Amino acid sequence: MKKFSTKLNVQLIAEVLSAFDIEHIVLSPGSRNGSLATHFSHHPKFKTYSIVDERSAGFVALGMAQQLRKPVVVCCTSGSALVNYYPAVTEAFYQNVPLIVLSADRPEHLTDQFDGQTIRQKKVFEAHIISEVQLSEDESTETLTQNLGLIKKAIAESIQKSGPVHINMPFSEPLYEFQESIDIHFDQFEIPKNQKTEIDVSSFSERWNSAQKKLVLVGLQFPNLRLNELIQQLADDDSVVVMTETTSNLHSPRFFNKIDSVIYSLSEETLENHKPEILLTVGQNVVSKKIKAFLRNHKPKQHWHLDPYWQPDTFQCLTDKIISDPVEFLEKFVSEIIQQPSHYYNDWNSLRVEKEKLQKEFAENTGFSDFKVFEKIIETLPENIDLQYSNSSAIRYAQLFDHRSDIRVFCNRGTSGIDGSTSTAAGAAMADKRQTVLISGDIAFFYDSNGLWNNYIPKSFRIILINNGGGNIFKIIPGPENSGVVEKVFETTHQLNASHLAEMFGFEYLKADNLESLEQSLNGFYSKSDRPKILEVNTSEIKNEEVMREYFRIS
Amino acid sequence: MKKFSTKLNVQLIAEVLSAFDIEHIVLSPGSRNGSLATHFSHHPKFKTYSIVDERSAGFVALGMAQQLRKPVVVCCTSGSALVNYYPAVTEAFYQNVPLIVLSADRPEHLTDQFDGQTIRQKKVFEAHIISEVQLSEDESTETLTQNLGLIKKAIAESIQKSGPVHINMPFSEPLYEFQESIDIHFDQFEIPKNQKTEIDVSSFSERWNSAQKKLVLVGLQFPNLRLNELIQQLADDDSVVVMTETTSNLHSPRFFNKIDSVIYSLSEETLENHKPEILLTVGQNVVSKKIKAFLRNHKPKQHWHLDPYWQPDTFQCLTDKIISDPVEFLEKFVSEIIQQPSHYYNDWNSLRVEKEKLQKEFAENTGFSDFKVFEKIIETLPENIDLQYSNSSAIRYAQLFDHRSDIRVFCNRGTSGIDGSTSTAAGAAMADKRQTVLISGDIAFFYDSNGLWNNYIPKSFRIILINNGGGNIFKIIPGPENSGVVEKVFETTHQLNASHLAEMFGFEYLKADNLESLEQSLNGFYSKSDRPKILEVNTSEIKNEEVMREYFRIS
Repeated sequence: MKKFSTKLNVQLIAEVLSAFDIEHIVLSPGSRNGSLATHFSHHPKFKTYSIVDERSAGFVALGMAQQLRKPVVVCCTSGSALVNYYPAVTEAFYQNVPLIVLSADRPEHLTDQFDGQTIRQKKVFEAHIISEVQLSEDESTETLTQNLGLIKKAIAESIQKSGPVHINMPFSEPLYEFQESIDIHFDQFEIPKNQKTEIDVSSFSERWNSAQKKLVLVGLQFPNLRLNELIQQLADDDSVVVMTETTSNLHSPRFFNKIDSVIYSLSEETLENHKPEILLTVGQNVVSKKIKAFLRNHKPKQHWHLDPYWQPDTFQCLTDKIISDPVEFLEKFVSEIIQQPSHYYNDWNSLRVEKEKLQKEFAENTGFSDFKVFEKIIETLPENIDLQYSNSSAIRYAQLFDHRSDIRVFCNRGTSGIDGSTSTAAGAAMADKRQTVLISGDIAFFYDSNGLWNNYIPKSFRIILINNGGGNIFKIIPGPENSGVVEKVFETTHQLNASHLAEMFGFEYLKADNLESLEQSLNGFYSKSDRPKILEVNTSEIKNEEVMREYFRIS
Repeated sequence: MKKFSTKLNVQLIAEVLSAFDIEHIVLSPGSRNGSLATHFSHHPKFKTYSIVDERSAGFVALGMAQQLRKPVVVCCTSGSALVNYYPAVTEAFYQNVPLIVLSADRPEHLTDQFDGQTIRQKKVFEAHIISEVQLSEDESTETLTQNLGLIKKAIAESIQKSGPVHINMPFSEPLYEFQESIDIHFDQFEIPKNQKTEIDVSSFSERWNSAQKKLVLVGLQFPNLRLNELIQQLADDDSVVVMTETTSNLHSPRFFNKIDSVIYSLSEETLENHKPEILLTVGQNVVSKKIKAFLRNHKPKQHWHLDPYWQPDTFQCLTDKIISDPVEFLEKFVSEIIQQPSHYYNDWNSLRVEKEKLQKEFAENTGFSDFKVFEKIIETLPENIDLQYSNSSAIRYAQLFDHRSDIRVFCNRGTSGIDGSTSTAAGAAMADKRQTVLISGDIAFFYDSNGLWNNYIPKSFRIILINNGGGNIFKIIPGPENSGVVEKVFETTHQLNASHLAEMFGFEYLKADNLESLEQSLNGFYSKSDRPKILEVNTSEIKNEEVMREYFRIS
């Protein structure tokens, strides 16, 4: 059967992807990328997925790559199709997800000549891409060798720097000629590995050991048991406070895992007294605005940032960039540290104990509302699931509650956009053996409704949609309520519900609008089913913003 | 009432927009652009529209600007929101639609510092934008004067070059402080006008008058009666053949308005005999692939391209660039031309007469199918409507049928993408007093389903969705049928229908799956109603590709 492209450069890229052990390719239908799509679909190495909407396809591939921890290819036709990937490209760039954007293009001389579906594809993602390469269509040995080098370099960079790369491939007609065999062969090559960086740990451990107040703050991290152990070792020290975000996937009774609820209502004096001498941050993408404000207003003398990819000065007091894989650095570092007698942990912990008591009382006295819904959902989550949160209010609510250590938490905090949460969760579910649950706000959910247009979503996939009838976050954050146009301009009040989309895309649909029906709906919600499910919790009649103001007032 | 932003740069941009007589602002909700949104919403000069999905919002603004023939503003918050505009920006760039992208940003020093919703916004559209400016937040007189200059320049370029521009505005907190008055005033300035270009018409008319075979080909044009008259004057000449695309909005019995159906099955010998000495093209974005192939394979000696914006060498034989507004050039040109005795028109016309007869017979003998559905819909369109076609098969079918001169036709042929047809049509309907009808294929329709999430769609808006169950175009164009994976990779077979979306977004829904029910549904379809309507015509059981192959075989 004739199934492989006669185009040698199509064969070439397939073999290089294969050599890198890349298996998953998300295709969007088109004419110009037809030979790529056909070739990949027939190639024994690859699993291909057809997703029509390129914006969604980009996030699907991102969700897959996020779970697989290796590159996933997303492949489209020429023209504006390509720039529909841009939201996912920015998210991959700032979330450090390896993503290979492979775009078919017209031959270069046809750009701006008004052939159909032609834009200036070369370098279109320049500002947010690890590497961009333009292949040549020529099939001479020299050019093929050159293309091989370019493709290898781009993929290696995607892996080493863990981010998006763009490979642009021009195609002349005829686009659809096929043959039985693959003619491209090249010598095996070694897949480049991350280089280890030699860091002088002692210069850090000396300073660490002479400080009595040290704060460790961990942002977004892929679940990593060894990292958890190492941070735990840091935390077993009265001079150390470890604050973890929900997306850090770290767990210990010693960690402060609900940052906002502890620090929100503290006076500037208390905050000043509790500021660290040394701040050690691990990874980026911190959700909590309150911790940012605290550390910017009460700057530690030293701020060390430990991170292989980014060296941001998030708190405007960065003193030391530790460019390293966190585990690699901490393995050495913990062996050199000495616990210090200090009140620092206990000072913070007494604040925490007090706030936890208040939160417990508050929760007991609070009726049906977004706050209560999140509490109920999180405490009844099944075991060993992957949990995806949408931006923005969903992940902020999540940070107010404990998540068990068997639950892995993800959220697109690279750019913190609402644009691809459902597609990302769907992609994650496709790549992952664990059950995936998405907890989404309504605006993010309806924004990315094409995320449901996906034939590969596993039956176990669950969406819990908290529909408060609009962008409620703008009533919670201070400011917009003074504008006089909060409903019109900010909140996007709507009457939409998910029942139509559920029916359209073959999801089972459940609905709850009070605590009793929520409990009933959750009963059996996660167990085996013949379709994926959406549970829509309607809180639009509730003044959720008043509940949250009350929470932050008393907490 | 405190309703105007205290930020002087917000006041400044509002006053400059106002001075340019720009009235329409499409806002997407967000925090960082909150002061802009609030200020614009309260400003007596502006009409604001809130559209959540920025990808759709970009196309809505494009549709409005396309109809109004003046810039429309589209305004978003910081982060990945902005790059969701990119598909509409590329379309505006290649369709020559003035669009002002106004993005709120974090202060520049916070880029890459992992504040939420921050990407590298500056110059993000660099490859597809007429002008990009970065404003400063500073409020000194000097900076305000500088910003005034930058804004004026950008807007002037958007108007003069008729394309998208990007104004990026950094905002520090506090974002929400309002006051009662507007403090910014500046001297009135003259709105720059397009400069007239002096073109030596005689060098063209001399050559024209000495040639016996001249072909005029007109691509996408905004409806223009004067242009129609001038082209008619060219056409009243036996040495001239005028071929017009459906999107050219030109009408005359003398014009060849169904290019594909005339030239498709002509032999290479016939084509060679019918090739022109001089080809005059007006505007770009030619839909017909067949005319491209004809003129590339049978090159005229001279190709003049008349166009104020682009000078593409679409047919690879460009000899003369006439950089001018077509009306301006033709006013002078027609006064100098002398009709030539020639067989050229009659030679072409006899081909046309023959093909028209064949098409008529074919249509009479063809049953329910996409071909027949388009014929029926187009012949029963009401008077004086604006018709929007989606890409790609819809506009290709449209080109096979006559459209009455009271119907104005539009299609996003800048990039020929399927990504924003519904949103564009919705925007056009919002800006236009005439009734707007969208005729869409199913893939384009479901791709842009958020185009229906729009509270400003007039009740008179009508969508006719031809749902053939997948990207049927890939069965019609030659090639993909040989791939063995046409259903999987190209066609995107689906079982979706529009009833759920219609219910979700408050559209009346009608359905037809044979000629009788189509006729019934069309009866009264366009008349006054309390909701916009969708008519879904289901042809998924029909082998439409076989009908089209038969059509092109006999035609």
